[in-house]
Amino acid sequence: MSRFLNQRLRAFEAYVPGEQPSGGYIKLNTNEAPFPPPPGVSERLTPAEIRRLNLYPDPDGKALTAKLAALFGVGPGNVMLSNGSDEMLSFAFMAFCGSGVGAVFPDVTYGFYRVLAGLYGIPYEEMPLRDDFTVDVSDYLGVGATVVLANPNAPTGLALPVRSIEAILAANPRNVVVVDEAYVDFGAESCAGLVGRYDNLLVVRTYSKSRFMAGARLGFALGSEELIKDLKKIKYSVNPYNINRLTLAAGEAAADDNAYYEENWRRLEAGRRSASERLERMGFVMTDSKANFLFTRHPDIAGRKLYAKLREAGILVRRFDQPRIGDYLRISVGSGEQMDALCLALSKILERSPEK
Amino acid sequence: MSRFLNQRLRAFEAYVPGEQPSGGYIKLNTNEAPFPPPPGVSERLTPAEIRRLNLYPDPDGKALTAKLAALFGVGPGNVMLSNGSDEMLSFAFMAFCGSGVGAVFPDVTYGFYRVLAGLYGIPYEEMPLRDDFTVDVSDYLGVGATVVLANPNAPTGLALPVRSIEAILAANPRNVVVVDEAYVDFGAESCAGLVGRYDNLLVVRTYSKSRFMAGARLGFALGSEELIKDLKKIKYSVNPYNINRLTLAAGEAAADDNAYYEENWRRLEAGRRSASERLERMGFVMTDSKANFLFTRHPDIAGRKLYAKLREAGILVRRFDQPRIGDYLRISVGSGEQMDALCLALSKILERSPEK
Repeated sequence: MSRFLNQRLRAFEAYVPGEQPSGGYIKLNTNEAPFPPPPGVSERLTPAEIRRLNLYPDPDGKALTAKLAALFGVGPGNVMLSNGSDEMLSFAFMAFCGSGVGAVFPDVTYGFYRVLAGLYGIPYEEMPLRDDFTVDVSDYLGVGATVVLANPNAPTGLALPVRSIEAILAANPRNVVVVDEAYVDFGAESCAGLVGRYDNLLVVRTYSKSRFMAGARLGFALGSEELIKDLKKIKYSVNPYNINRLTLAAGEAAADDNAYYEENWRRLEAGRRSASERLERMGFVMTDSKANFLFTRHPDIAGRKLYAKLREAGILVRRFDQPRIGDYLRISVGSGEQMDALCLALSKILERSPEK
Repeated sequence: MSRFLNQRLRAFEAYVPGEQPSGGYIKLNTNEAPFPPPPGVSERLTPAEIRRLNLYPDPDGKALTAKLAALFGVGPGNVMLSNGSDEMLSFAFMAFCGSGVGAVFPDVTYGFYRVLAGLYGIPYEEMPLRDDFTVDVSDYLGVGATVVLANPNAPTGLALPVRSIEAILAANPRNVVVVDEAYVDFGAESCAGLVGRYDNLLVVRTYSKSRFMAGARLGFALGSEELIKDLKKIKYSVNPYNINRLTLAAGEAAADDNAYYEENWRRLEAGRRSASERLERMGFVMTDSKANFLFTRHPDIAGRKLYAKLREAGILVRRFDQPRIGDYLRISVGSGEQMDALCLALSKILERSPEK
């Protein structure tokens, strides 16, 4: 830390993303897809396209915006793009919190929300999930603050039905409800269809997980035209050209091949079911995840130890060193080969470490 | 504007970048290079590289950081990457202003500084440039605030020598001095060599202008290890994976071909000299620009009219509707063909509009 850092940020702790080691590991720690983007993406990024990198991108990404609007059945004024969905979340915290408006989110959820609130000096309340990690909808009715819910939640994988989110939207007409749908395509219900009905709904989505393009950094939001205008005001003041030309082109090509995605989402869901069953047979306990990861613990081995043993075996998973979930691991649903390696490693670890 | 927007931001005006129309114009309004990136960039972005977009990028961009450190003769801990230099400026305002520390910059400079200060609620002072648009160095000695200077300045193109910046660094030991060197490679002196000597110096650079990759969105900063750590703390809390895989790869390939850049910078400087001379023969008055643009006015025609006439002729340039510079146009140095078209259009406009 330098002696120049803003006083308020000196004690502040930054977000720590999952490790991205330079190689050698089976990476099941950051929920990357085990599939490449659809073939249309490489076809689109021709040498001629790359040569045009001397030109700025369209700062509104109008062509991609139009495609996403069509895909979700909304108008182009209801869509906005961002450099990954983390950036959109940052814009939303800046726009819809502050000046006396705080934020509310679960105690166990995507850790980035807490970091954003801290960074911008926004007061926040963490609502405890129930013991089984489900959201108690009544906690979010008329809270007088911006509500931020990941659905499915991370790292639990548990999803709320749309009717529950709708109850929260209806009970908070004076505040924005941000629904972070990073993992929704793997088997949960999207709130995208509510965009025309609730002017306080902001649905945040990403290409990172269910569009297999974590490396492209592309997120987007769906919301009322007024919410989108507010977010664009922030974007134009923080980073007007926030998305590069190749990502915009890749995003368009990807949006043209929904069939490829639908097929592979079903494969990932099957992979999740199969891995769940195999782990349950080994005694693992897990949530009913609707995401592309499992959230699981073993009654006989502490999470810290299991994490370390897997790492020794060359397999990276994610563990959160925080209350309530320290014994859980979040394990991405990878390829069949990766899941075989995981199960083999786990069974060996369990054989050798019968006691906790 | 929605009824949910943060009270403080309701009256706030966003930054307005130069127009990016969908085609048909000769674009001399956003200082894009008339050359593609070096050939190594397309060679690097192979279909195999594109297929790996399912994986997250390295959030620290270690490989590119190492190349830039070598290029500038500093350590890797003195370099940080950003999604365009606007993002780096945003991080710097967040990190080094606020909590009682304001910002100081010229009254005529890159308009984004004022917008960032407004967005983050940072008090700022705009120091008037002299009548000839030069910076009075004595205005920046011991100001007790973060100093932000574009060098060369935009839109004037005028550059300060390193010894003047050094005087400002030495006279503000308790505050950070941000030197925005977006245009430095076109003929001005860089402060990069001072990084080891002043722990309050942050040099901000971009691939957009002199590395011909405005479409890739890649900026970087050079500074003391402590300043870089502070900026990373902000980045990891706003957008941990802020640079996509393809831009990182493109940035590496580009950093390997400095000879290509050196040659084309000299071509752009020659293009600037030649265009200056032709415009001067038509009666234009201009600054001694060291950037890849001209900053010029004609004594006989108002800037607003000249801008409109050029637009009618299919040529876009930039005009800033603000005090002191409303009669000036900022004209990018484009290809020889583009500059011929500009000169032809200007001579026709002057023939037909002899009076102001």
